[in-house]
Amino acid sequence: MTHPLIKHICRYVTVPDKDIAAILSFFDTVNVAKKQNLLEEGQYSKTTYFVISGCLRLFFINEKGGEQTTQFALEDWWMSDFLAFGSHKPAVFYIQAVEKTQALALSFEAHEALLEQFPYLEKYFRLMYQKGYGASQQRIKYLYGMSREELYHMFATLYPAFVQRIPQYLLASFLGFTPEYLSEIRRKK
Amino acid sequence: MTHPLIKHICRYVTVPDKDIAAILSFFDTVNVAKKQNLLEEGQYSKTTYFVISGCLRLFFINEKGGEQTTQFALEDWWMSDFLAFGSHKPAVFYIQAVEKTQALALSFEAHEALLEQFPYLEKYFRLMYQKGYGASQQRIKYLYGMSREELYHMFATLYPAFVQRIPQYLLASFLGFTPEYLSEIRRKK
Repeated sequence: MTHPLIKHICRYVTVPDKDIAAILSFFDTVNVAKKQNLLEEGQYSKTTYFVISGCLRLFFINEKGGEQTTQFALEDWWMSDFLAFGSHKPAVFYIQAVEKTQALALSFEAHEALLEQFPYLEKYFRLMYQKGYGASQQRIKYLYGMSREELYHMFATLYPAFVQRIPQYLLASFLGFTPEYLSEIRRKK
Repeated sequence: MTHPLIKHICRYVTVPDKDIAAILSFFDTVNVAKKQNLLEEGQYSKTTYFVISGCLRLFFINEKGGEQTTQFALEDWWMSDFLAFGSHKPAVFYIQAVEKTQALALSFEAHEALLEQFPYLEKYFRLMYQKGYGASQQRIKYLYGMSREELYHMFATLYPAFVQRIPQYLLASFLGFTPEYLSEIRRKK
């Protein structure tokens, strides 16, 4: 069976069989329990994660001391605090497992070395960041322009499996309202 | 004098002199007057812009019929509706010149052909999108977590030249408040 990461890369670029083992050797497998942190605000740990199974979330602690989730990553998604990853700045986000998760960790140094050795992977990562950037632009649009209820309906339509899988209190936080208000919207529907 | 785009690329990757003319041949120079649109919502025109001089903004029309600016691009910045650029979806944003602007236009097809011919440029674009993505993640954090007044002070501290240059009504729209409220904040300071 092809490794999930290699399968994902092959959607965008051709990977010769002879390179597979060498590519995978740049990654560390990490297994985290539900609610375990992979990254904490203020850390200089520069790592990006590819989810094999489970789910990660990106969040920060807001002024009221609450956890505000801004992003989720399911299977085949990459997650990092990308500004901290690409700079010498400390992280401004936490990364935490929403459920028991297996992920591949790629450090900044390993990322650079991987691309040095296999330059054809630049295209894969270019496309990942291009998509991530484009999705963020739209996300910003929705944050400015939509009511929270519309945001919920959009997510429920675009990502039905996602909305079923994420715990309700996290989905509510992500959408910017209380769990009670989320139940109310769901009942209305 | 080195071309501004080549100068910018050379901050990240080495460009042999012999390639410069061929690289630039993939781009079209566009000159736009103040308030002229380069992209309109619903268009399938897939182009990314590199600003040579002037300033562009990304905005959408909100439900009240107002223009909500979500991003600016000054000299040496790239701008596009990146989800539309990388897919077959219509644009959900407008791109407009804030002042008289000269930019280089790179169509999706030219982008692909450029990278096919000069694969070492993949790294440059990968880094551009990685930075853009990282900045968007932080932007989303600020939209969730900061008051509008804090947002203003953060922008004024990080980008003083930018805050001076952008017309006040656009800066107010970008920050999500009225021009009157912006004047009030500035007076307080």
